[in-house]
Amino acid sequence: MNKKFVGFGELLLRLTPEGYLRFRQASRFNLNYTGAEGNMCIALANMGMDAALVSKIPDNEIGQCALDMLERYGVNTEHVPRGGERLGVYYLEKGASQRPSKIIYDRKYSSISQAEPSEFDWEKILQDAGWFHFTGITAALSDNCAQMCLDACRCARSLGIKVSCDLNYRKNLWSTEKARSVMIPLMEYVDVLFANEEDSGNVLNVHADDSNIEEGKLSIEGYSDLAFRLKERFGFERVCISLRESLSASDNNWSGLMYADGKTYVSRKYPIHLVDRVGGGDSFASGMIYALMNEYENQEAIEFAVAASCLKQTIEYDFNLASVDEVKALMKGSGSGRVQR
Amino acid sequence: MNKKFVGFGELLLRLTPEGYLRFRQASRFNLNYTGAEGNMCIALANMGMDAALVSKIPDNEIGQCALDMLERYGVNTEHVPRGGERLGVYYLEKGASQRPSKIIYDRKYSSISQAEPSEFDWEKILQDAGWFHFTGITAALSDNCAQMCLDACRCARSLGIKVSCDLNYRKNLWSTEKARSVMIPLMEYVDVLFANEEDSGNVLNVHADDSNIEEGKLSIEGYSDLAFRLKERFGFERVCISLRESLSASDNNWSGLMYADGKTYVSRKYPIHLVDRVGGGDSFASGMIYALMNEYENQEAIEFAVAASCLKQTIEYDFNLASVDEVKALMKGSGSGRVQR
Amino acid sequence: MNKKFVGFGELLLRLTPEGYLRFRQASRFNLNYTGAEGNMCIALANMGMDAALVSKIPDNEIGQCALDMLERYGVNTEHVPRGGERLGVYYLEKGASQRPSKIIYDRKYSSISQAEPSEFDWEKILQDAGWFHFTGITAALSDNCAQMCLDACRCARSLGIKVSCDLNYRKNLWSTEKARSVMIPLMEYVDVLFANEEDSGNVLNVHADDSNIEEGKLSIEGYSDLAFRLKERFGFERVCISLRESLSASDNNWSGLMYADGKTYVSRKYPIHLVDRVGGGDSFASGMIYALMNEYENQEAIEFAVAASCLKQTIEYDFNLASVDEVKALMKGSGSGRVQR
Amino acid sequence: MNKKFVGFGELLLRLTPEGYLRFRQASRFNLNYTGAEGNMCIALANMGMDAALVSKIPDNEIGQCALDMLERYGVNTEHVPRGGERLGVYYLEKGASQRPSKIIYDRKYSSISQAEPSEFDWEKILQDAGWFHFTGITAALSDNCAQMCLDACRCARSLGIKVSCDLNYRKNLWSTEKARSVMIPLMEYVDVLFANEEDSGNVLNVHADDSNIEEGKLSIEGYSDLAFRLKERFGFERVCISLRESLSASDNNWSGLMYADGKTYVSRKYPIHLVDRVGGGDSFASGMIYALMNEYENQEAIEFAVAASCLKQTIEYDFNLASVDEVKALMKGSGSGRVQR
Amino acid sequence: MNKKFVGFGELLLRLTPEGYLRFRQASRFNLNYTGAEGNMCIALANMGMDAALVSKIPDNEIGQCALDMLERYGVNTEHVPRGGERLGVYYLEKGASQRPSKIIYDRKYSSISQAEPSEFDWEKILQDAGWFHFTGITAALSDNCAQMCLDACRCARSLGIKVSCDLNYRKNLWSTEKARSVMIPLMEYVDVLFANEEDSGNVLNVHADDSNIEEGKLSIEGYSDLAFRLKERFGFERVCISLRESLSASDNNWSGLMYADGKTYVSRKYPIHLVDRVGGGDSFASGMIYALMNEYENQEAIEFAVAASCLKQTIEYDFNLASVDEVKALMKGSGSGRVQR
Amino acid sequence: MNKKFVGFGELLLRLTPEGYLRFRQASRFNLNYTGAEGNMCIALANMGMDAALVSKIPDNEIGQCALDMLERYGVNTEHVPRGGERLGVYYLEKGASQRPSKIIYDRKYSSISQAEPSEFDWEKILQDAGWFHFTGITAALSDNCAQMCLDACRCARSLGIKVSCDLNYRKNLWSTEKARSVMIPLMEYVDVLFANEEDSGNVLNVHADDSNIEEGKLSIEGYSDLAFRLKERFGFERVCISLRESLSASDNNWSGLMYADGKTYVSRKYPIHLVDRVGGGDSFASGMIYALMNEYENQEAIEFAVAASCLKQTIEYDFNLASVDEVKALMKGSGSGRVQR
Repeated sequence: MNKKFVGFGELLLRLTPEGYLRFRQASRFNLNYTGAEGNMCIALANMGMDAALVSKIPDNEIGQCALDMLERYGVNTEHVPRGGERLGVYYLEKGASQRPSKIIYDRKYSSISQAEPSEFDWEKILQDAGWFHFTGITAALSDNCAQMCLDACRCARSLGIKVSCDLNYRKNLWSTEKARSVMIPLMEYVDVLFANEEDSGNVLNVHADDSNIEEGKLSIEGYSDLAFRLKERFGFERVCISLRESLSASDNNWSGLMYADGKTYVSRKYPIHLVDRVGGGDSFASGMIYALMNEYENQEAIEFAVAASCLKQTIEYDFNLASVDEVKALMKGSGSGRVQR
Repeated sequence: MNKKFVGFGELLLRLTPEGYLRFRQASRFNLNYTGAEGNMCIALANMGMDAALVSKIPDNEIGQCALDMLERYGVNTEHVPRGGERLGVYYLEKGASQRPSKIIYDRKYSSISQAEPSEFDWEKILQDAGWFHFTGITAALSDNCAQMCLDACRCARSLGIKVSCDLNYRKNLWSTEKARSVMIPLMEYVDVLFANEEDSGNVLNVHADDSNIEEGKLSIEGYSDLAFRLKERFGFERVCISLRESLSASDNNWSGLMYADGKTYVSRKYPIHLVDRVGGGDSFASGMIYALMNEYENQEAIEFAVAASCLKQTIEYDFNLASVDEVKALMKGSGSGRVQR
Repeated sequence: MNKKFVGFGELLLRLTPEGYLRFRQASRFNLNYTGAEGNMCIALANMGMDAALVSKIPDNEIGQCALDMLERYGVNTEHVPRGGERLGVYYLEKGASQRPSKIIYDRKYSSISQAEPSEFDWEKILQDAGWFHFTGITAALSDNCAQMCLDACRCARSLGIKVSCDLNYRKNLWSTEKARSVMIPLMEYVDVLFANEEDSGNVLNVHADDSNIEEGKLSIEGYSDLAFRLKERFGFERVCISLRESLSASDNNWSGLMYADGKTYVSRKYPIHLVDRVGGGDSFASGMIYALMNEYENQEAIEFAVAASCLKQTIEYDFNLASVDEVKALMKGSGSGRVQR
Repeated sequence: MNKKFVGFGELLLRLTPEGYLRFRQASRFNLNYTGAEGNMCIALANMGMDAALVSKIPDNEIGQCALDMLERYGVNTEHVPRGGERLGVYYLEKGASQRPSKIIYDRKYSSISQAEPSEFDWEKILQDAGWFHFTGITAALSDNCAQMCLDACRCARSLGIKVSCDLNYRKNLWSTEKARSVMIPLMEYVDVLFANEEDSGNVLNVHADDSNIEEGKLSIEGYSDLAFRLKERFGFERVCISLRESLSASDNNWSGLMYADGKTYVSRKYPIHLVDRVGGGDSFASGMIYALMNEYENQEAIEFAVAASCLKQTIEYDFNLASVDEVKALMKGSGSGRVQR
Repeated sequence: MNKKFVGFGELLLRLTPEGYLRFRQASRFNLNYTGAEGNMCIALANMGMDAALVSKIPDNEIGQCALDMLERYGVNTEHVPRGGERLGVYYLEKGASQRPSKIIYDRKYSSISQAEPSEFDWEKILQDAGWFHFTGITAALSDNCAQMCLDACRCARSLGIKVSCDLNYRKNLWSTEKARSVMIPLMEYVDVLFANEEDSGNVLNVHADDSNIEEGKLSIEGYSDLAFRLKERFGFERVCISLRESLSASDNNWSGLMYADGKTYVSRKYPIHLVDRVGGGDSFASGMIYALMNEYENQEAIEFAVAASCLKQTIEYDFNLASVDEVKALMKGSGSGRVQR
Repeated sequence: MNKKFVGFGELLLRLTPEGYLRFRQASRFNLNYTGAEGNMCIALANMGMDAALVSKIPDNEIGQCALDMLERYGVNTEHVPRGGERLGVYYLEKGASQRPSKIIYDRKYSSISQAEPSEFDWEKILQDAGWFHFTGITAALSDNCAQMCLDACRCARSLGIKVSCDLNYRKNLWSTEKARSVMIPLMEYVDVLFANEEDSGNVLNVHADDSNIEEGKLSIEGYSDLAFRLKERFGFERVCISLRESLSASDNNWSGLMYADGKTYVSRKYPIHLVDRVGGGDSFASGMIYALMNEYENQEAIEFAVAASCLKQTIEYDFNLASVDEVKALMKGSGSGRVQR
């Protein structure tokens, strides 16, 4: 199954002060064009897969810049109509040590959030696809966007295409009530779920068992149990959870687990000295989808997904430019950082 | 009459690629916080006047950055409530030679455009003011903004405060019909009008006499006549027109004229090798208001306004950081650029 | 005839000190990936044409960066095999006023110069092409490259594809003797020639008539006559000559002429305040090819080519990112640089 | 007691090579306008307090830039006369790992060091103040500056204003003998002392008890005892000591203690991955003063001061732009660096 | 006479905002280490001459950076003792069009200004020299510096070394009275004088004849006559005057003349689009000295000096990095700025 | 023995994306001019030694830039002839955490690799030298380079000059067979060897004893034994081995040992938070050579070499700018990173 990956979601302009400057100290912004599903498309295209993003962007040069970014890294953009009012913006202030990173969203009224379902012909879009992915962010953008997620899911199901979803709950986009009312019906179409404990509770109303909480944090058993219960409740084929231990804004531990085929597979854990943690979850999902589309064994798949997303967090900007070889080298233990000549 | 200047308008974030890069080549943006009336407040504060901006900005750190910019240059910001959805953004690509500069606006849904008239207590805002200024841009932002312009004008009139307006027609904000319906009623309160030929036609429906057009361009006589007709039609005390001859995106000629006291006063003309032409009109208006608030003679006033705005266009970013001494030195002929040690 | 454009040539890394710094003052280099034919592909893709580059680049990440640049702007790269030793480099120091720009080439041993003719299957490469272009630079890189130019020309002829060539004589790549021995036989396949007086003499041994020289420079009549003689000698369909008057490293006059259908068509002349003059000739050729592929009238074609390449020289880096609309606007007289809002 | 904070001290221009470059590698300097008391004013203004700096700066644009910096962050500058010869400069090379940061001072002959006591009318300056602060640096600048410190202290005492002092011994400004002769008489006016072990010995001739030294370093008991002895000797209301464990130029542990109301209050300890440690002590003092002016309990006060100054060291440049909310969040345990959306 | 050039003067740190930003807009400074005589040493070393600077700099790393700059370009620094308080600083804001460049000096108390005459053993310093140069700036720094100029002049005379002086009057360093009392006695030792009309009047009390003034400016005849009178009055071998017509801060005309061997030699005039005009006079003097040390004919010498200094003004920073070949190419007419490949 | 150090090797241009950007994200490169022996010359010159590099560089301005870098830091370059085709380039992508740094070499056909042995007159070059150093890299560049190493070694031996060699095996330059055939004969002339376990095996075919391997890594005893065996096999006076434990691309442990006088001397170990690890080995060798040329005791020598190279890795770019005082301070325990004022 080495067919095309299709993601559906918003593209945004990211603006970041240089280095560790705060917003109020900045006299210039580094820029990037990003978005959860777009990040995944770039990561997968970079790993040699066919990847296409479905979105909508304004018909001006800022929109064009977002397209350029996708095309630069080999993503198919033929299903990105031009129009609407604006490209969403998000401002990122990079944290360090005890000071957390800060994100200010200015994404309301974006072209994709105001697009009409009729603008997207999913039969055509998905005709040669092998995988369809969306996130809870896309569904939260507008009722139209939620409808389009549903349209796409139905179409994918009818075409026998795998569907994955990353819950990605964003409290400033919708309430848990609204999220549940939109997302739960969509779960019926989802084969592979990406979630964490908070998302599960907020979006799917599935909570971890209290007995699995130690010192205020969920144990591996607790996460494993949560994955199992999600699978039981919604019938997912797989449930994938990335596990971040935030020691500080500079150092995190990173691992993951997958419930599949009646068992939980837990990855190695990486202590990461962060370069840019934004997009870590997207790279976990894209790493897993790469592994699954290439029919990796379960343990290898979760190791690949975690190693890929570990490398992402050592790379500036939102998407993962680590190659398959680099991910595999890390999986085999080459995390020592010796110079590659 | 050395009392406070009050401007009312929007603050925006300006994002500009470095140097002469096009949008599609940019990997970082230089940033500035700007807006026609804010630019004028900074220019006037920089010249030693009391200046206050009335606006509304979102309650986040990007909004705070806009405030910081005003305060850094000494502008009073006590009448800038915090709230609403967003700070407008505009993207500027700097042109050169035959390639024009390009501006992409993303200002819709800004906090000020969605503000309520009841948020601004003009009696209090204007209590110690000597001058009130607004532009056609502010009136175009929303019906509420137009209402606030009217509220402010009425209050200013009742308090005996001078009112000036820069027509500043923006075709992407409103139609000429809408502009006329809003702006013409406001003209009754305006003492000093800033306009150009196009604005006059679009906004006030006053056109130049064809007989004054030579080789497709209005002559000085034509502009003078236009100013006279505007004055006749609306009863302005003064009509001020800046005259830009765009030779290219790199070189412009710049001058101005004022109709006042029954006569037209024409300034010297400056050939400018442009550093940043954005904000040229705002600096012309702020230079004139400085001159009038300090009771310059008419000829001196137009010379001051033009020299000030000439210097602005040799300075990066939207507002004028030329000092009164620097403007006066230029008026006295020191345009030769000898090093000041 | 709106089919695909195919160019064949080298890709290089360009390294330029910031601003107007000399090499010996630089602590960083701005970088670009470029090459005469690659520049043309990007310009044509940017104007909405299908464009493909044929080249060879090393199988490392610097090679990949060159590919990324082409793909970012929509150029097809499927006929760029990976391998060989290196990507050529050129160092550019930007001149100003009386100080000329300086280029240091380090392009020897590049992957394409060492490629084998058998690596390129021209039948396949050109199967859906409408136009093939190469420059004298490509032919000069190595005997193999010259052979590949010949292979491509023959194939293009057999497929009825238009062939154009820009003589582009580079004295540090070959002698005039060598150039003539290689290039003259290729001329039989060329429909549209791009040349200047020096190139004609050096490469094709066709010289201007002395009687056309005034004050040491060729007159328009002289250039026209030269074009006619080139056409007569080699049977070209068209001969296109760009005319640069270098006033200084900061200011040039720019125009062009085309001999076609028994007549010389001369363009308007633009005084350019230069941003980056490198790639001016490439953008003239790509502008002309755009016009011809879209069946412009002769006068319109030369005006389009000159206006396009005028705009290029107001843009940083080697290739032309001016859109068709922007070129047409300039042709219609909008060279005044007024801000586009 | 939420009245105005007044600091008295020097403003300097700080010049820092980019990133971790050494002085000898630098081709540009990042710049900041700073000074112990100015840093504290900015930190307090940023936390919503009224803050005013008393200083003197030259009447040129470099001096103006220093004023702009204070005003940008809301500090009152009405008591900063313009004149004198120069603004002091300090050069900072940022260290990393085993390589320490380096500071080269060029502050001699600065405007404030050469100011006359008669230039400052303390009755007027302090009329609406609630707190006055100075450092040993200010007193060391010149005899005049020492006199002005005394004038200000006496005036503050007479007005019932709290006085604090940070000893801040600088060996390149004066000898311990000179320091003692100037500083000890000033202690009579000081309510809240900021000091460390070295400062106490050098400036006040109060040394830690040897029995409190373990493995060459003072124990918490030792610091507590030192604070007690300082309080006993000079009658301070409070003695505050920041405790830095320098593991390397990249990583420090940071905590603090306060002796007050007959007891020692010790804070939590933070392991900091440093962004910029300069100004750490100033932010400790400003954090404490914020807490005391807002009548925090003793334990809460020392926790606030330490958390505030921990955050400062994750922020570039000398002053603290952490908000009260951010400090409180860290105090409550949110040091994990999770992204704030 | 291809012996060593020795210059005596101050080294300074130059700090310049990026591009055309004003001081108040700057967040970083580009830096350079400079000084009139140091600039000349670098220019001459760059042209292949032996050149040594005599100066004094502080014994810290900022001083070391100044030395590094000289050594990077091949200047001998063995006679630069280390010590004293500080390296002088100057702040430069680059002007454009009608806005003049601005320089703020902070050079008082520099190491060289406080050096003792006994620190310099001129016999040893000048033992293998062929030329000694100083400027009025050096003599103005302190009485000690003036004494050292005298010491050096006397020693040079006794050793038969040519002596040149550039009057370079700086009104913020001394009064005309003081300047005259110091400089006039030094003239007895000077063989080659560099001056302009203002300097001559201020420093040497020699004024141009009124009859040579046309439209307020001195004619070529006037300058020629001034040179003659200077020569008559002080017995100079040559008097060299650079002629700057400041059209604006962006465009200047540049030429020069030399009175020698009973005749005035006038150079070609260059219209310069300025990159950095600072150091123009120094490069004129170093160009002339190069020509004279290499025994150029008079006309060739003035052409060389003017072409060299024309090129300097197209180069960033204070000193001339144009090579002899580049200067000669310009003299031969290659000012057209064609790319050198 | 405080005579001159002479190194022989290649100079390269290093190009590095800003910060932690990957190659494919870079829009500019920071640049440095470097090379193993050149780095050592700069480090030694910076420590006050006479140091000269022998190399060959092209006769263009990029070559000149490499010379400028050496001269800026006081290295003698009189034995660097100009000519040949090119300066080698290497591209460095800085790694972080689990992502390793990457180096792409483009050094083939460099001027030095194509130089002739007859271009270097070793008698003259080494006449006043006290130490000669070369690396396996130089010998690997070409057969001519290997011959020149031999020529230099023989000459050094005949003049009684110490010879050192750093094996520095580079697998992309030659095979182990070729390396052995070239390097083993050279060992006869080497007094001081710098090597690591891999190099010893690859180049000299001397392997560590298996019994010294614990958990897959050589023990200190193992390294000590290896050094002993190298000494036994080739008769070296000293064998020096740097020991790097790569924890990640961000953090390394660093130490070293030296076998000399029948004993192994092991240094303190430093945990380094890396700024730039490239050139670590060169700085170890130059530190050791400094210590030996200045007759340090063995233990002091290895401590000095390790402390020096520890500091190098906290400094950007390839060569060590730590001073002798800084190294000694670190040796004495000042690794705590307290600010040096």
